[in-house]
Amino acid sequence: MSTLTDLARDVRAAQWQFSVSEAETRTAALQTLADILEARSAEILQANALDLEAAAVSGLAAPLLSRLKLSPEKIATLCEGTRALAASEDPVGRILRRTTLDDGLVLSQVMSPIGVLLIIFESRPDAVVQIGGLAMRSGNAVIMKGGREAVHTNAMLVGCIQQALSSHGLPKKVVVGVEDRASVAALLELDQEIDLVIPRGSGAMVRHIQGATRIPVLGHAEGVCTLYIDKGADPVMAARLAVDGKCDYPSACNATETLWVHTDFLPKLGVVGAALMSAGVTLRADPECLAVLEGGCAAGPEDGHIEYGDLILAVRAVAGIDEAIARVHRDGSGHTDAIVTDDVEAADHFLRRVDSASVFHNASTRFADGYRFGLGAEVGISTGKIHARGPVGVEGLMTTRWLLRGKGQIAGAYGPGRREFVHRSESVDS
Amino acid sequence: MSTLTDLARDVRAAQWQFSVSEAETRTAALQTLADILEARSAEILQANALDLEAAAVSGLAAPLLSRLKLSPEKIATLCEGTRALAASEDPVGRILRRTTLDDGLVLSQVMSPIGVLLIIFESRPDAVVQIGGLAMRSGNAVIMKGGREAVHTNAMLVGCIQQALSSHGLPKKVVVGVEDRASVAALLELDQEIDLVIPRGSGAMVRHIQGATRIPVLGHAEGVCTLYIDKGADPVMAARLAVDGKCDYPSACNATETLWVHTDFLPKLGVVGAALMSAGVTLRADPECLAVLEGGCAAGPEDGHIEYGDLILAVRAVAGIDEAIARVHRDGSGHTDAIVTDDVEAADHFLRRVDSASVFHNASTRFADGYRFGLGAEVGISTGKIHARGPVGVEGLMTTRWLLRGKGQIAGAYGPGRREFVHRSESVDS
Repeated sequence: MSTLTDLARDVRAAQWQFSVSEAETRTAALQTLADILEARSAEILQANALDLEAAAVSGLAAPLLSRLKLSPEKIATLCEGTRALAASEDPVGRILRRTTLDDGLVLSQVMSPIGVLLIIFESRPDAVVQIGGLAMRSGNAVIMKGGREAVHTNAMLVGCIQQALSSHGLPKKVVVGVEDRASVAALLELDQEIDLVIPRGSGAMVRHIQGATRIPVLGHAEGVCTLYIDKGADPVMAARLAVDGKCDYPSACNATETLWVHTDFLPKLGVVGAALMSAGVTLRADPECLAVLEGGCAAGPEDGHIEYGDLILAVRAVAGIDEAIARVHRDGSGHTDAIVTDDVEAADHFLRRVDSASVFHNASTRFADGYRFGLGAEVGISTGKIHARGPVGVEGLMTTRWLLRGKGQIAGAYGPGRREFVHRSESVDS
Repeated sequence: MSTLTDLARDVRAAQWQFSVSEAETRTAALQTLADILEARSAEILQANALDLEAAAVSGLAAPLLSRLKLSPEKIATLCEGTRALAASEDPVGRILRRTTLDDGLVLSQVMSPIGVLLIIFESRPDAVVQIGGLAMRSGNAVIMKGGREAVHTNAMLVGCIQQALSSHGLPKKVVVGVEDRASVAALLELDQEIDLVIPRGSGAMVRHIQGATRIPVLGHAEGVCTLYIDKGADPVMAARLAVDGKCDYPSACNATETLWVHTDFLPKLGVVGAALMSAGVTLRADPECLAVLEGGCAAGPEDGHIEYGDLILAVRAVAGIDEAIARVHRDGSGHTDAIVTDDVEAADHFLRRVDSASVFHNASTRFADGYRFGLGAEVGISTGKIHARGPVGVEGLMTTRWLLRGKGQIAGAYGPGRREFVHRSESVDS
């Protein structure tokens, strides 16, 4: 435990030094990281082979095995992503707001790194490079706890990142790994040393961490995403959006899990149902929908408010748009909800009222993603409402500081009958 | 407990309704609130008199008594503040960013209320109107727990707010009060119903709440603010900033508590010390500073990293600017720290490196305040780095939602060899 406190303090000290490094140096280190990943790809694949052998022995499930396995193509993708980060705008010190408070008293709000992040993720070792790269771009330090099954691969990749940092005179302790759960438990106690925890895993894991620490937690609990088919929906479009939302990547958190259907649309629901079933989707429908769906099965009480992560979809009738909105609020998870309708007023009604991170009109719930939103590298998706909500890009790793430059002014000189503040907004480009 | 769950759910339902009310209606309700406070000021003062009588019996300390006491002038100030909120720009639905992802697929990021806030504050009943007004402006709902000693006054003021809401057809349950600590403990369990806790009180209270809930907490632990006198400082300016920082309002969290002094400045420290002592400040100095300060006393081990809230100042010598920065990081609280120097390079060095919410050059630490920063009404000051940092205005009560308007696009249509995203930033004024 005291070793971990020392580690966290070392990381904190390294981050202070790192946060004032030049943007160009961090850019160069990112380029070097891509070069190192290419040059050392055989070593990386060897380390990965060790993990894959152990996983075969322990009988890791096939989907986890495929996430664990690196390949020359995956490494090439990581290099590409790292070079894209190197080419992206540096956020450190960006001026967000500038206000003249009085003559010669100018306030700026500037972007600054949050500090020390603790990131906990499961099997995919690719995440080490993605997260490490984001930390390098944003001036943050990161303590990473990856999955146990990827321990050799993760250590190799952390080593590559530290090599890239050191080769540019940057402190290598801004990216470090820890290996066991006991370390995580101890680190969660260190709210003086760690500024933010980002768990990337199940909703249960996120809630466990939220209950175990005073440190703020950025994460998403779960994705119970809804597509609401309004009475004014085009059935062909509704079918297309439902199939894409459900089938494009069923285990993603932005996959559609629930279809609410306006009763006036029920006569056309067969078109949507047929498209879904021919795509292999099991429909769990309430009696009203079941009556018009050939091949559907009866929904149980849990259907309509759970994340299947599979080719299963809950289908239920609602009397109108306001009932749909109320059910989204009651049964959804505030991740992403969509309406399909040709009625623009109904769409506006839905977009204004649904209190979810992402709310869509005539678009698949699968668009809720940092890359698709144009945010560049994605830190994750947050269903919390504090700090960052929905897909989170590098800006989610930034905080702000207020810098005030004066000429010796004192607060006691201002007030009724004394000097007045000017409070003039200035351009931030100058 | 189940009653509080019901209460929180009612408040949540009221907030959803409130969040889609028209800005004009909320503006009108704020104007009405100011009118009601004027019209019912005699009743308000009667309720306050009941609290003052009870406080006299229980022997409430004089400073708390003066915070508890309302007067016609204080009510007039509250009316003025409420009318200023009515005149301020409505934040709900403000578009922050707009991106064309592809032809006919347009993403907007809009400001939205956070939802249900739990605000815990101590004796000042003025806070009820200030917090209630902020909630009305920002489309949030608020559950308030004020000090027990202000129970009659608080209930009267909550009643005035609910009257203003009802008179414009707005749900009155968006502003409610609870009276006992047991209710707070139960409410802190309701992380499904409450989105943010804002404790306004001691650092110990904030830390207790952080440890007792999964709900995010926005608050400041404490304010150990430093003034660093660089070797290039003008002694007259240094004296003025030290006296204002310490004496303008010693119990404020932005008061200066610590003076770090460059050893090269020690020959001129007498000027600063004399000014402080003639303002009644006790100086607790280390041996190096004590040697040049007539009338100072010897510092103990706790001096230099505590919040006095009184006319006491810690004074210590440092070998240079980097030692000063390291000590601010080690002993400060990340609230507000200032450098006084005529050397612009030294100032930039300090402003770039000090990782505090507010960092000042040649200005009093007392400027760290939402009103002085031009943020309008102040929610509080945050020393956390997540969501909002430093003085927090009404924007600190807002989150964002991502709205995507399409024409039936699906995610599966995009990717290598398929359609590409455009990701074109659009003006947000259009």
